[in-house]
Amino acid sequence: MSFELTREFLSNLKDMIAVSDDKSVAELVSHLHPADIADIFDELSIEEAKYLYHDLEGETRADLLIELDDDTREKFLNALSGKEIAKQFIEDMDSDDAADVIGELTEERQEEVLQHIEDVEHAGEIVDLLAYDEDSAGGLMAKELIKVKESWNIPTCIREMRKQAVDVDEVFFIYVVDDDDVLKGILSLKKLLLAGNTARIADLYKKDIISVRTDTKDEEVANIMEKYDLVAIPVVDSIGRLMGRITIDDVVDVMREEAEKDYQMASGIVEDVEPSDNVVLLTRARIPWLLIGLFGGIMAAIILGGYENELGLYPEMVFFIPLIAAMGGNVGVQSSAIIVQGLAANTIGIESTGRKLFKELSVATINGTILSSLMLAYNLIMKEPLALTATVSISLFAVIIFASLFGTFIPLILNRYKIDPALATGPFITTMNDIVGLAIYLMMGRLLYTLI
Amino acid sequence: MSFELTREFLSNLKDMIAVSDDKSVAELVSHLHPADIADIFDELSIEEAKYLYHDLEGETRADLLIELDDDTREKFLNALSGKEIAKQFIEDMDSDDAADVIGELTEERQEEVLQHIEDVEHAGEIVDLLAYDEDSAGGLMAKELIKVKESWNIPTCIREMRKQAVDVDEVFFIYVVDDDDVLKGILSLKKLLLAGNTARIADLYKKDIISVRTDTKDEEVANIMEKYDLVAIPVVDSIGRLMGRITIDDVVDVMREEAEKDYQMASGIVEDVEPSDNVVLLTRARIPWLLIGLFGGIMAAIILGGYENELGLYPEMVFFIPLIAAMGGNVGVQSSAIIVQGLAANTIGIESTGRKLFKELSVATINGTILSSLMLAYNLIMKEPLALTATVSISLFAVIIFASLFGTFIPLILNRYKIDPALATGPFITTMNDIVGLAIYLMMGRLLYTLI
Repeated sequence: MSFELTREFLSNLKDMIAVSDDKSVAELVSHLHPADIADIFDELSIEEAKYLYHDLEGETRADLLIELDDDTREKFLNALSGKEIAKQFIEDMDSDDAADVIGELTEERQEEVLQHIEDVEHAGEIVDLLAYDEDSAGGLMAKELIKVKESWNIPTCIREMRKQAVDVDEVFFIYVVDDDDVLKGILSLKKLLLAGNTARIADLYKKDIISVRTDTKDEEVANIMEKYDLVAIPVVDSIGRLMGRITIDDVVDVMREEAEKDYQMASGIVEDVEPSDNVVLLTRARIPWLLIGLFGGIMAAIILGGYENELGLYPEMVFFIPLIAAMGGNVGVQSSAIIVQGLAANTIGIESTGRKLFKELSVATINGTILSSLMLAYNLIMKEPLALTATVSISLFAVIIFASLFGTFIPLILNRYKIDPALATGPFITTMNDIVGLAIYLMMGRLLYTLI
Repeated sequence: MSFELTREFLSNLKDMIAVSDDKSVAELVSHLHPADIADIFDELSIEEAKYLYHDLEGETRADLLIELDDDTREKFLNALSGKEIAKQFIEDMDSDDAADVIGELTEERQEEVLQHIEDVEHAGEIVDLLAYDEDSAGGLMAKELIKVKESWNIPTCIREMRKQAVDVDEVFFIYVVDDDDVLKGILSLKKLLLAGNTARIADLYKKDIISVRTDTKDEEVANIMEKYDLVAIPVVDSIGRLMGRITIDDVVDVMREEAEKDYQMASGIVEDVEPSDNVVLLTRARIPWLLIGLFGGIMAAIILGGYENELGLYPEMVFFIPLIAAMGGNVGVQSSAIIVQGLAANTIGIESTGRKLFKELSVATINGTILSSLMLAYNLIMKEPLALTATVSISLFAVIIFASLFGTFIPLILNRYKIDPALATGPFITTMNDIVGLAIYLMMGRLLYTLI
């Protein structure tokens, strides 16, 4: 089944490495998956890690490197020469992974590594891939794939596939191209298995297939693969020539990152951090929201200062300040989050913006009515002054309506201007909603206390 | 490329359906992917949908049904007889999808549908799958797979595979079993392609493979497949017999749901809603957090009531109430979110709880010192009373430390008791942090104003 890293395992391993007990080390890690060895690497010193990797075989070593945490990998690669990186890792890697790893190095180091790759075709593929934007289909795709010509018969096809398969990790689909390399369709292995030897490719392959272009954004690739339940997707250039293919495992990482980014935004964390990161990183990821919150708090203090007289005359108004301030932020985040999620999952539907706002207004009216009525009942039961009772309920209602509309609008507008709509669930808008809520409450109080 | 549903397309289609223009309808939808037709279905009336589906061929129809939104599917199936469901949909479906669809029906309807499935083996597989918990590997897996015996040679293997492949949608892996059906390993299609006819399966297949048990939780299946970059995973029973396989496209849905649930929790939405859902659903998803927020606000009002004298004597204390209240919630959510994310992605590492708390304490101390110093500077520059200046800075520091530790502890404790740790980023804990922050501030104020 799957492996779980324990502290005993780790200290055992460290002891063995300390006394250079090659045999025991090999016994301990040889059956592990590269992803598990990567977890172990994260906990080792550079010297220990260098010792460990020498014991692994080529493909495991290459896979291990991809599975490492970004900072562990950076530290580890810094401890190796360009030649070591090329010979011990890159030569055994698929082009997409190789390009990812090399892309993280400085330009100088990149050249050094590329020079030491013996297989010129492999090096050429890597250089091709390095030219693409990291966040595009071109940056995600691998060059290794199996392609056959439309005009071939089955025996030719199988013979050619045998040649091509040497370079390909796993064969999921066979791509069919014409003589100009333009993608025509997909041949499933199942069809190939079931076909007789006299069949022609042209009669077997599926024509209406979904592909992406090299410049398609990675998030869109993820959405397309998820929507159409695809395990692999071919990538073509602007005139339809087959350039590479993306497999779902690479896209799963994109999806996870996308979802994490939204979650972090909604919970006020700025950078992609993990609990195991160091104190400096963890602090840096969190201080920006706190600073915005602090600034918001100071703004609130200044606004409250403007109402010092009223608050002195009607001290009971103070009691409901936290309630109103919190409610503005809460309602705004809820409204934005639904829109943000809809935009991310492409389930926003074809309703017009006007219809969305109307619907949001209905939800806000219902919620506002329920909550304001509850506060009305509470304040009446508590025999609070009538002016306060009216102020709390009316301003609560107003705050809910305002924050709902604002929370719906902002992510839609951000999205239209190609800015990440998740920003709307972030600290800036939340804090602004808090402050606007407070301002509405105080103005309403000033007005109603003079009227009632 | 991929299809985008527009309002023109939809009104065109509805017009064609209205005048029963079969040919134009077929022209419009025949080249579309089932997932796109599903998007169209969501916008049609039941009558229009029933008209449309008759025009589709078997497999497209089956795929369409799976791609439908849950409520659209429910409405649609309710309009059909058990026989129609069996003949027009279930017979063309993979066992896992068929079980999902049938599982949503009432028991009475389930039996009705099952009786009308002609292929008894298919019906049997569906019944087997219905027995598993929906959220387990058994509930996710499909029965259709290609398996070969360890002892076979290549020609036997290919012959048997041809037989089995008829039932399987896509062939990604060939599973190798012994005579008792116990899973031994995986044979990649690549190896099979490259092997000569005289090779034996036993020499070609990969032995150390990762599998899950039928009772493994779906989230764990997703984590394992993501960690090890798997496209398909075999499912075994408690004695290791091969029961089915799960493909990544089903797991992608689990991952998306998991990520959405955490995001919703952090943004105060209770149910899985989409912007296109109706007003009642949208309201129901949002009112719980608002009610908790309201209750928290009332608690804050009661606490403030207890300090009415102080607030009357030192009205400037009021100014910083929003700042302190907001900060407690913010810091708590941040701390919890990092832990929740780490638990979800399994990147929490092997640090002990003590070490985590110590690290969190360090982060909190740094953030607390920075923010408190800034407030100290602000209040000194603004020439606020010394007692207020001290109260704000000291209590801000205390609030940050408290909320950090609380925010770290709660998700870890929830997780230990098998409760979703994302609850900690939800309204209850956030509101509690707000209130505790406020209480600390007021107590500190009472103390310092008497001392200074």
